[in-house]
Amino acid sequence: MPECRPEAQRHRLTIAYDGTDFHGWQKQEPPQVEPLRTVQGVVEDVLQRVLRQPIILVGASRTDAGVHARGQVGHFDAEPTAIPFERWPQAINDRLPDDVEVRDIEPTRPDFDAIGDAVTKRYRYLVFNAQRKPLALRRTTYHFWHPLDLDRMNDAAARLVGRHDVAGLAAASHGRDNTVRTIHRCDVSRQDEIVAIAVEGDGFLYNMVRIIAGTLVEVGRGKSEPSCIDQILATQDRRLAGPTLQPQGLCLEWIRHR
Amino acid sequence: MPECRPEAQRHRLTIAYDGTDFHGWQKQEPPQVEPLRTVQGVVEDVLQRVLRQPIILVGASRTDAGVHARGQVGHFDAEPTAIPFERWPQAINDRLPDDVEVRDIEPTRPDFDAIGDAVTKRYRYLVFNAQRKPLALRRTTYHFWHPLDLDRMNDAAARLVGRHDVAGLAAASHGRDNTVRTIHRCDVSRQDEIVAIAVEGDGFLYNMVRIIAGTLVEVGRGKSEPSCIDQILATQDRRLAGPTLQPQGLCLEWIRHR
Repeated sequence: MPECRPEAQRHRLTIAYDGTDFHGWQKQEPPQVEPLRTVQGVVEDVLQRVLRQPIILVGASRTDAGVHARGQVGHFDAEPTAIPFERWPQAINDRLPDDVEVRDIEPTRPDFDAIGDAVTKRYRYLVFNAQRKPLALRRTTYHFWHPLDLDRMNDAAARLVGRHDVAGLAAASHGRDNTVRTIHRCDVSRQDEIVAIAVEGDGFLYNMVRIIAGTLVEVGRGKSEPSCIDQILATQDRRLAGPTLQPQGLCLEWIRHR
Repeated sequence: MPECRPEAQRHRLTIAYDGTDFHGWQKQEPPQVEPLRTVQGVVEDVLQRVLRQPIILVGASRTDAGVHARGQVGHFDAEPTAIPFERWPQAINDRLPDDVEVRDIEPTRPDFDAIGDAVTKRYRYLVFNAQRKPLALRRTTYHFWHPLDLDRMNDAAARLVGRHDVAGLAAASHGRDNTVRTIHRCDVSRQDEIVAIAVEGDGFLYNMVRIIAGTLVEVGRGKSEPSCIDQILATQDRRLAGPTLQPQGLCLEWIRHR
């Protein structure tokens, strides 16, 4: 990527947010009459006000409306400012609303690309698995009241690990030519009412983690067998997979870059 | 209390709620132009629709706006209905919004009084004690970023246990003649960033738990000494206690009745 501003320094930042009140990560283009509140829009706006220059913030993962993040990664270029660099984080966080926070910010090499250099991402999907209502947890979990068999879910999850064509686990609108991805890890654990599905891989297609979660929940409930994963990966048939679970159970945990 | 409707059966119910979007427990009187959304109002309305009769719901604890409950207790009288009693809970919960749930409902003696028969209540106040923002936890915790010394806080908490005049730990507007209460238990514990202050007693004056939490936080931060509790209890001087912490950290855990 050519440097248009020779004075500019590229920065990498880690961002956490409660996705409840955001229309996802990405700014809506073309401009809306009433612009939707997005993480990219809110953070870019604060960066511009603090650093007093136009900023373009690129995010590694375009999380959907309602999806949360603990470790979204972005990059932007900025020319030197009157504010010393070590005071940027506080100046930025003081101006950001309560539902988004810059956790880390550091200068990086000029060709660092938050999207292209991402090598591993980890997501977590939380299911509130009890008859009673999740109440305050309804914003961060999906409520499923039928009992879930975690042994069956982990049997299915283990079959996802490896390098596969995962087109059968993506929304039809994923828009990618290459649908081969490597899943490094997938496991399911329970703590009290909360069942956590953790997935780590080199990349995910559109809605993929929510579809994996929906498929594992159907296996855990006994509506399909763990071996359905083998069939989905062999046939790329989306109809064999489970439903796309609601966004609020999903959290982007971290991203590793080369 | 005289029984006006001889056919009526008194019921006791346990209610849990996320207080974020409620203007507290109590219905506002006289009727507002736009009635405020309260837990009592919402639950009473659903009880009336399910049981098809006028219902007056009495709650043991008038929690403030933003305060949560896991175990609020109420009572109401209802005449027999077409719906069998065992189907009431689901019929009620299906109609209640996502932020409130009836956890238990059972017939009780005709003179059971949710307010007058309460003998012990337990509250919990949560402090998010870290520099980073609580994000999704901002609705259920109070954010305090200075380090807290839990040994000091527990030293102060232990001094609260016993029978005392607690007027110095209540909002001036508590409106009670008798301000002597027994605190059975008060302790402070930490799990990761969350510091939990648990208080159990035979009754609490207005804002009392939030003022206890504010006082213990000042002790934990080093702004006052654990012995300040002795002074507050000896003098009943509200000015010696800490601030009234924000409501969203407070949760009514349970109430025991005679």
